[in-house]
Amino acid sequence: MKLSEAGERALVELARKICRRGPQVRIGIGDDAAAVDIDGGCLVATTDMLVASRHFPPRTTPEQMGRRAVVVNLSDLAAMGAEPLGLVFSVGLPRRLEVKFVERLVRGMDVAAREHGTHVVGGDLDESEEVVISGAAFGVASRRELLTRSGARAGDLIAVTGRLGAAAAGLKLLLKRLPAKGYRALVRAQLEPRARVPEGRVLAWSGFVTSAIDVTDGLAANLWQLARESKVKLIIERERLPEHPLVRRFAARHGFRVVDFVLFGGEDFELLFTVRPRGWEKVRRALKRVGTTATPIGRAASGRGVFVQRNKKIQVLPDRGYEHFR
Amino acid sequence: MKLSEAGERALVELARKICRRGPQVRIGIGDDAAAVDIDGGCLVATTDMLVASRHFPPRTTPEQMGRRAVVVNLSDLAAMGAEPLGLVFSVGLPRRLEVKFVERLVRGMDVAAREHGTHVVGGDLDESEEVVISGAAFGVASRRELLTRSGARAGDLIAVTGRLGAAAAGLKLLLKRLPAKGYRALVRAQLEPRARVPEGRVLAWSGFVTSAIDVTDGLAANLWQLARESKVKLIIERERLPEHPLVRRFAARHGFRVVDFVLFGGEDFELLFTVRPRGWEKVRRALKRVGTTATPIGRAASGRGVFVQRNKKIQVLPDRGYEHFR
Repeated sequence: MKLSEAGERALVELARKICRRGPQVRIGIGDDAAAVDIDGGCLVATTDMLVASRHFPPRTTPEQMGRRAVVVNLSDLAAMGAEPLGLVFSVGLPRRLEVKFVERLVRGMDVAAREHGTHVVGGDLDESEEVVISGAAFGVASRRELLTRSGARAGDLIAVTGRLGAAAAGLKLLLKRLPAKGYRALVRAQLEPRARVPEGRVLAWSGFVTSAIDVTDGLAANLWQLARESKVKLIIERERLPEHPLVRRFAARHGFRVVDFVLFGGEDFELLFTVRPRGWEKVRRALKRVGTTATPIGRAASGRGVFVQRNKKIQVLPDRGYEHFR
Repeated sequence: MKLSEAGERALVELARKICRRGPQVRIGIGDDAAAVDIDGGCLVATTDMLVASRHFPPRTTPEQMGRRAVVVNLSDLAAMGAEPLGLVFSVGLPRRLEVKFVERLVRGMDVAAREHGTHVVGGDLDESEEVVISGAAFGVASRRELLTRSGARAGDLIAVTGRLGAAAAGLKLLLKRLPAKGYRALVRAQLEPRARVPEGRVLAWSGFVTSAIDVTDGLAANLWQLARESKVKLIIERERLPEHPLVRRFAARHGFRVVDFVLFGGEDFELLFTVRPRGWEKVRRALKRVGTTATPIGRAASGRGVFVQRNKKIQVLPDRGYEHFR
């Protein structure tokens, strides 16, 4: 079977089966990041690769490529509730590129890392046919605090930070070369994302958050991942989804469907999490203190699958990811 | 200026200048790996990217690709004296590849990681034009033990583990499609390398080793890196270099120069280090206990540059790396 027919999930499952887990490995392949026991806590590590032809929309500057490479990795640490300690990057570049390109790329990495309270500490430069940026981020968390995809329990509230759909709408605008006037915030959400690092720490500290994942593949796909790993049923209410204020206007203006951005668009880098109902107020207020709103969007129940409720009608939410969006 | 004219060293210097160093960062860009202070010690992290068209000789199997990706990263940790905790991999693959390829690649990674006492704990799979494997390894070391490239002092002995030249000779054999009969050990050194992880720990524990680097770019290039970072002069004796026993025979048989393998050939993954003379015997014996011989090959002195002595004649050793070898 060719990779093109297999799908990413099957390949991750394959790798998870092959790689034996060491005694120190608390979280192995398949979560947002890995966690290994060290004295007094956990070392958390993750890696993410960006390939120019697939991951950067037209008009992405080298600085923005560097930023994205930082954010995709830090977002994985945020989803584990870890405190970042540093980032390393392996970058493959075609020989014909200008040195100026590298300078701008690295500058984008440095600025983005520092914005998130961490640093680029090492790297490797190689020659390759197309621009490939592979980052790895590492950090620490206490064992008790670690947020995983597998801890959601029946009765938990489902919630999400911030507003959804802006990055996907921005991508659509760039790909279709639509006028950006009035929609600069959407373009910025796509090209200059931020990771929810302090929010991840707040969720981890709270003691009431049972699972978390970052919204990169789209809310629907990420809900399905939580449901599968936690072995629960998740039911969300369509009316409660926090849409980015510009998304509805943009969709109406150009004839797109809002749900395609809000439910099936990715790269918002918001945190999707489940929380014990009695802890909700505490979590909401703690997030508020770092400047972030969170919205309850549904509930976990015993069973399997992900469902969406609208006007008392409940239906299965398609497990459709961002890769079908472009 | 194009990247093709700039050279890797200039680009690393550029990145080192741009990236600001955080207060916790003990070792930043430019050493074998980075080190960040954590409670009770240092977190050590490194990344290395392998690109199919450049890093894998003909006839490399997927398992061997996986192994190499593990070894290049663990070798960097070894050169810092760190104890590995885990590896993460980002792999870019063309869609037309078979799932079997991924299975064999990941199996190679898993086996190699476990051979070195550690585990593959996470990863990311992406689509790319050619096979790109980017790994990151992380580990721990105590602050006092950390081995860097910058600690060599005048009066130190220079030494190297194992034997040199086999991997480069094996590469030459594969590239020129020469008969492997009688030279399987050279081919194996190229296709199935090992990292000197326990040896790195021994050097770090000893308390007498002042600097270390892994021999990946070739002994000459790696000596120059040590000399530059430590701001010392290094003088090696040509007669003392520990050649792999098959290299001289292979070179004579096919009309190659032995020095091209031993001094300018890379990927031996041996450890090159400097040691206080009064600690040499202790270090030598400690390495012996993990099954490895080490050979003193010269001395560090005050001054700058790298020199090679042969029959009382001293001349500058060219700073010529493995990239000119192929």
